[in-house]
Amino acid sequence: MEIGNDIVALASAEGASAIALFRLSGAGVRTKMERVFKPRNKSPRFQWIPRKAMLGTLEYQHRILDEVLLIWYPAPHSYTGEDMIEISSHGSVYLQRSLLQCFYELEIAPADPGAFTLRAFLNQKLDLSQAEAVADLVAADSAAAYDQAMQQLRGGYSQHIEQLRLNLVDLASLLELELDFSEEDIRFADRGQLQELICQTKQELQQLLDGFYWGNAIKEGIPVVIAGKPNAGKSTLLNALLQDERAIVSPLAGTTRDTLEERFYWGGYTFRFIDTAGLRTATDEIEKLGIDRSYKAIEKALIVLFVWDAHAEPFDAKDIQSIQEKNPKAEIICIANKTDLSHHIVSKAIAISAQEHKGIEDIKNQLLQCTQKLQPTTAALVTQARHAEALKKAHKFIQNVEQALQTNVTADWLAFELKEALDALGAITGKVCSEDLLKNIFSKFCIGK
Amino acid sequence: MEIGNDIVALASAEGASAIALFRLSGAGVRTKMERVFKPRNKSPRFQWIPRKAMLGTLEYQHRILDEVLLIWYPAPHSYTGEDMIEISSHGSVYLQRSLLQCFYELEIAPADPGAFTLRAFLNQKLDLSQAEAVADLVAADSAAAYDQAMQQLRGGYSQHIEQLRLNLVDLASLLELELDFSEEDIRFADRGQLQELICQTKQELQQLLDGFYWGNAIKEGIPVVIAGKPNAGKSTLLNALLQDERAIVSPLAGTTRDTLEERFYWGGYTFRFIDTAGLRTATDEIEKLGIDRSYKAIEKALIVLFVWDAHAEPFDAKDIQSIQEKNPKAEIICIANKTDLSHHIVSKAIAISAQEHKGIEDIKNQLLQCTQKLQPTTAALVTQARHAEALKKAHKFIQNVEQALQTNVTADWLAFELKEALDALGAITGKVCSEDLLKNIFSKFCIGK
Repeated sequence: MEIGNDIVALASAEGASAIALFRLSGAGVRTKMERVFKPRNKSPRFQWIPRKAMLGTLEYQHRILDEVLLIWYPAPHSYTGEDMIEISSHGSVYLQRSLLQCFYELEIAPADPGAFTLRAFLNQKLDLSQAEAVADLVAADSAAAYDQAMQQLRGGYSQHIEQLRLNLVDLASLLELELDFSEEDIRFADRGQLQELICQTKQELQQLLDGFYWGNAIKEGIPVVIAGKPNAGKSTLLNALLQDERAIVSPLAGTTRDTLEERFYWGGYTFRFIDTAGLRTATDEIEKLGIDRSYKAIEKALIVLFVWDAHAEPFDAKDIQSIQEKNPKAEIICIANKTDLSHHIVSKAIAISAQEHKGIEDIKNQLLQCTQKLQPTTAALVTQARHAEALKKAHKFIQNVEQALQTNVTADWLAFELKEALDALGAITGKVCSEDLLKNIFSKFCIGK
Repeated sequence: MEIGNDIVALASAEGASAIALFRLSGAGVRTKMERVFKPRNKSPRFQWIPRKAMLGTLEYQHRILDEVLLIWYPAPHSYTGEDMIEISSHGSVYLQRSLLQCFYELEIAPADPGAFTLRAFLNQKLDLSQAEAVADLVAADSAAAYDQAMQQLRGGYSQHIEQLRLNLVDLASLLELELDFSEEDIRFADRGQLQELICQTKQELQQLLDGFYWGNAIKEGIPVVIAGKPNAGKSTLLNALLQDERAIVSPLAGTTRDTLEERFYWGGYTFRFIDTAGLRTATDEIEKLGIDRSYKAIEKALIVLFVWDAHAEPFDAKDIQSIQEKNPKAEIICIANKTDLSHHIVSKAIAISAQEHKGIEDIKNQLLQCTQKLQPTTAALVTQARHAEALKKAHKFIQNVEQALQTNVTADWLAFELKEALDALGAITGKVCSEDLLKNIFSKFCIGK
């Protein structure tokens, strides 16, 4: 995490293309580029103008490397806050290598992943949660994930977190007063005000934590478990859902042997479909293990598609109950399969034939409706596990305070935990941060960002 | 080849990256972008400044698509000669799709391959051979191929061809005088001047045609055939050469069953190594076929590595002679293999042990020396088969004229061929061109160029 040196990276994707874009940042990049960039404008009055695209050639060791466009963004009005230069060259892979080689020889070092955004953070061009949003933005694969990252990048989320942190600071001040004068048995703090602040802050923290459930699902894909008895047609349904969509994605690596996971994009969301082993009272030990895993998948689901074979048996409410017991929060969509063969009357369920691709569109619409129903109304959505951990810490602290106040003990022992909780919240936006934390966050970035 | 409409393409490579670059061209792109681009500078005096990077958001259908940098290049001072806009966005694949979708809905059509360069040609920003150089530049995979394309792009080649065409026009004028007045038995043309012009033009055409041999080798890779008797260690040598280089490229698709082709980069050049069947007097019909192919490969080689087993037998000059007979132009490098086992004295040959990776560096240095020796001194190198065909046509025409003059016949019948030859040369730089020709040339481009 060397800061202050000059860095360069290919910012556009690798591979042959029409144009390749290089980003350079650091106090020395302008002087270095002036040595190799020869503007086409040969006027003696020519000078570098900030933010203006200049046409010219890059010439190094008596060789014309390329005709390029060069734009200079002087500090502090650049992405990183340092002097920056962007160069658009022809997109040959060979040339990309040659240009990088030339830059390295001019002592402009290859940028680490996230190096530009790290500098932007250190120069206070954006805070830490905004920096994280930049990485999410590049990785986003659905409209919902993208919008979420964009909102975080634009700072709405940071403001929300900062307000919460300030609330905690207020709370802390009131408590410190308690603490300082407790031995003298004088209470400066207004207990009523304190209690109100505690209640309000706790609610907000809980709301944010609830949102993480959703924010993470948007980012990673909404988990939809397909559950039901053996031979209800779960896998056929999964295939029917996926075949219906053009954007079929190959099975994810690392899924467990017995549950199959597939992603698909629909209505601006990414759904992660998880096919599970059939639910029944198993006698066989191995089957029991599979069914255990099915229930574990149900516990983590946001939506459960409960499928039963309407040709073989009527609907049994007990099946749904056992799912609800495992996951009371999940939305359950009942699906009566094999209705092409059945004459059973089906109410409150979607009648389909997975085999004949009938009713699939209805399921997809129902999925969208459930998704909109699940969407929290909060403006700030937590998407990073790191943030959720910080919020949990703060929440636990508040609960401790609440208990302490009820038992009427002094707040002495809360001092340390208070500091920890504040630091944790401060770390979300980077008010408080360590080098390790920064290393950990920015190493996940792509190069050139 | 619709011209005049507004077009857009992703100009940077596909895939997730820090930044993606879009190019838009056409008379309407500014007005259309003004509808969706909201500059961060909210001053009422804000206005679009040519070639200046402007920060802002792209907003479409009440949604912020992205924060972008937008640069406007007003006509005619742009790559295409039309109004152009370049937009740098975040590099998410999802976003790339969304932005393109937005542009399409604004009636900015997806650009065909080469559409931008085609427009540049039609607006006389560059000629046809320069346009072809743009495609070569993007495809170049070695310093030599790149420099060659860059020189062609910068117009040196075009000037040379144009000078040649003007020579032909002079020649034609002199001949037309012959033609017009031949019946009256009056000779306006100075026969001496005519002959001198013919001789000079013929030489230049031949020089250019000789250069194609080289220019094409630089572009496609220099063909180096590894030849020798069976079991001389040819394949071991190939492996040793390739293993020595980090930049090993997988075998080319479409190579014949019996000759193996591998590319490697060394000293700024791409070499195409062709391993062949061992040469000997075969009795077997199938082996004969293989040996025939070996000789065919030798015919097309620029360099032949002749390998023999110095452990098994002394050097036999006849082996080299048979190769020279097949290809008198090729440079031959003699390589004595298995010298770790042999005590034969080897002169004028590189002593190696392919097995023990000894002497490989010597071969590579010798390859570079041969390459530099082969390099023609001509300033303009022909790299396109299309250009070579045109030059051949012109060369044939000149020969016909030469013959016609010697037999003292009138030049009447040359009129048609003269026109054809001039058209062919004119087509190199695009002085003369048909829609079919343009389609054929630009369809080979990448999108966004």
